[in-house]
Amino acid sequence: MTTFTFEIVATDGHARAGVFHTPHGDLLTPVFAPVGTQATVKAVTPAQLEALGASLVLANTYHLYLRPGDDLVAEMGGLHAFMQWPHPMLTDSGGFQVFSLAKIREIDADGVTFRSHLDGSVHRFTPEKSIAIQENLGADIIMALDECPPPHDRAYNEEALARTHAWAERSLQAHTRRDQALFGIVQGGVFPDLREQSAEFIASLGFPGHAIGGLSVGETKEEMYAMIEVVNAVLPPEKPRYLMGVGTPQDLIEAVRRGVDIFDCVLPTRLARHHAAMLQNGGRLNMRRNEFARDPRPIDETCTCYTCQHFSRAYIRHLIIAKEMLAATLLSIHNLHTLVQLAKAMRQAIIAGRFEAWAAVQLQTGGG
Amino acid sequence: MTTFTFEIVATDGHARAGVFHTPHGDLLTPVFAPVGTQATVKAVTPAQLEALGASLVLANTYHLYLRPGDDLVAEMGGLHAFMQWPHPMLTDSGGFQVFSLAKIREIDADGVTFRSHLDGSVHRFTPEKSIAIQENLGADIIMALDECPPPHDRAYNEEALARTHAWAERSLQAHTRRDQALFGIVQGGVFPDLREQSAEFIASLGFPGHAIGGLSVGETKEEMYAMIEVVNAVLPPEKPRYLMGVGTPQDLIEAVRRGVDIFDCVLPTRLARHHAAMLQNGGRLNMRRNEFARDPRPIDETCTCYTCQHFSRAYIRHLIIAKEMLAATLLSIHNLHTLVQLAKAMRQAIIAGRFEAWAAVQLQTGGG
Repeated sequence: MTTFTFEIVATDGHARAGVFHTPHGDLLTPVFAPVGTQATVKAVTPAQLEALGASLVLANTYHLYLRPGDDLVAEMGGLHAFMQWPHPMLTDSGGFQVFSLAKIREIDADGVTFRSHLDGSVHRFTPEKSIAIQENLGADIIMALDECPPPHDRAYNEEALARTHAWAERSLQAHTRRDQALFGIVQGGVFPDLREQSAEFIASLGFPGHAIGGLSVGETKEEMYAMIEVVNAVLPPEKPRYLMGVGTPQDLIEAVRRGVDIFDCVLPTRLARHHAAMLQNGGRLNMRRNEFARDPRPIDETCTCYTCQHFSRAYIRHLIIAKEMLAATLLSIHNLHTLVQLAKAMRQAIIAGRFEAWAAVQLQTGGG
Repeated sequence: MTTFTFEIVATDGHARAGVFHTPHGDLLTPVFAPVGTQATVKAVTPAQLEALGASLVLANTYHLYLRPGDDLVAEMGGLHAFMQWPHPMLTDSGGFQVFSLAKIREIDADGVTFRSHLDGSVHRFTPEKSIAIQENLGADIIMALDECPPPHDRAYNEEALARTHAWAERSLQAHTRRDQALFGIVQGGVFPDLREQSAEFIASLGFPGHAIGGLSVGETKEEMYAMIEVVNAVLPPEKPRYLMGVGTPQDLIEAVRRGVDIFDCVLPTRLARHHAAMLQNGGRLNMRRNEFARDPRPIDETCTCYTCQHFSRAYIRHLIIAKEMLAATLLSIHNLHTLVQLAKAMRQAIIAGRFEAWAAVQLQTGGG
């Protein structure tokens, strides 16, 4: 194997099963990455993540830059050592959080100046700064700084896209670590021509992988799926494709059908902290409900996760009502397992050449 | 083996190493029991408890009676099944929590009427009621209802002791499950004559094990150790002795020196939630302190727990500052491991015939 080569081992329609080689191990795609915003996937240990089958973990550049600081993480040996995740990792560019969490002071051609959501202090991200931070953090896959505008604002998207493209070039030039794969990000809101133009430009730069950004941020499902189709028709098939911040079981299936390989989303752990259990078929159970008080069944009788192999709905509801931390842990394990295993099931179906039939059944039975 | 027989395998001075046979496995004593107040040891899974070496877990009758209700726990197969702890369990009588958490409305010869700390509703515990609840919960070791008075109030202690003794007899009579060992509790505050009188009376009733209650509730260390000596001089050596709600590494060592076998305490998990790491030598580290921000060492370089085998002080401090739940989990694992392993080290020292020498070194190096 060569680092950062991507082998497609099977296809079924546009769906692909692949292997992406990284310095911390092979990623078998399609793959779903749990999100460890502050260098921890909330409420679960790395050992629990391994046990539920996770292979790739995402951490957030914006958060770690602010706290504890990327220089501190570097001093502690980088993110893998710091959070004790010895498998592949991915960091985002920080751009999305700057635009969604921080208070923007100024966006210009060179970068963005913002106030920390923690203490109001003023900071500036440029493409070069984002790459420097991500080199300190040391993930296997890192992202070019981009701007994620409101999806339906045409004028804003045109203007932002010019910046995103210039920043992609500067990110590539700034990047020095050969043990990291820098992915470029396609933007363009819900506008097919902008998406196509963006995919062509980003693909022309020679990144080892590509991301589709700016989706699942307010557009409809139909718009999202249409944009994925437009972009993937342009992006070179021999490189991995990462759909950022998505999502639900339905979204994962629809995106894999359209040629996406990599996913991340806070949904499983966020829902867990709000007492919701995700089901493989896309349904959700509010575990706080009275009807579960004396329900001896696991969340999902077909699920093989630690939570479902041991605990009843009655027990999980008790933990929620009693405000016990274990509730978030057990629900996080279950929800993450659901999406991680869904991605593995898709891979198996693709390899077996029955993905389209499998997806049709999943989506019919409510897979979303 | 016969259920609830206690074999002493070695002694060293008053210290004993034993085996207490229960329906859910053998307890090797001395043993420290993590506390799972609401049917969960806060922030850790049963798998993590097993991995850190725990063999006995305590749950609180008062809390579980109020929420989710002992009838519900019974319907779900009892505490072992409900919380998925397949090893020995212990429940207290609920008395201590009634006297410390609830608002007492009336104590009389027959029982105690109190208001729930959760919703103010009125409830009544009698010896018979406490036993009925504990039979529903289904722990291996259960406790007779007792009263835990302020330790220095002589008149109150005399009056309460009469109730505690009468309740011990009634608890014995009420108890029907043969797969549970009912322990009697010795009270008497800091008064040697009351303690002696109580130990004689409780021992005369033929319980399969005895507990020392009403200590670590405001008296001095010297008073506590003196009371343990007085009581253990009376209690029959062939039955296990349980010191309730204790405690620190120093307390465990001093109590084992005086013939105690079983301990429980909320200290390790409570300290963990307040960011304190317990050290084997009795010291504590406030992991929130600035000095740990860039400290690559584990909490304790000699510790073999999951936390110390993986994570740096810098990472744990980061989790605390970032208000991540994983901080409580990692510190709970470490603190529980510290006391569980301390009890095991004492057992090994007793079996090796070097307990007194070992204890002297431990206590000299600050073991408390």
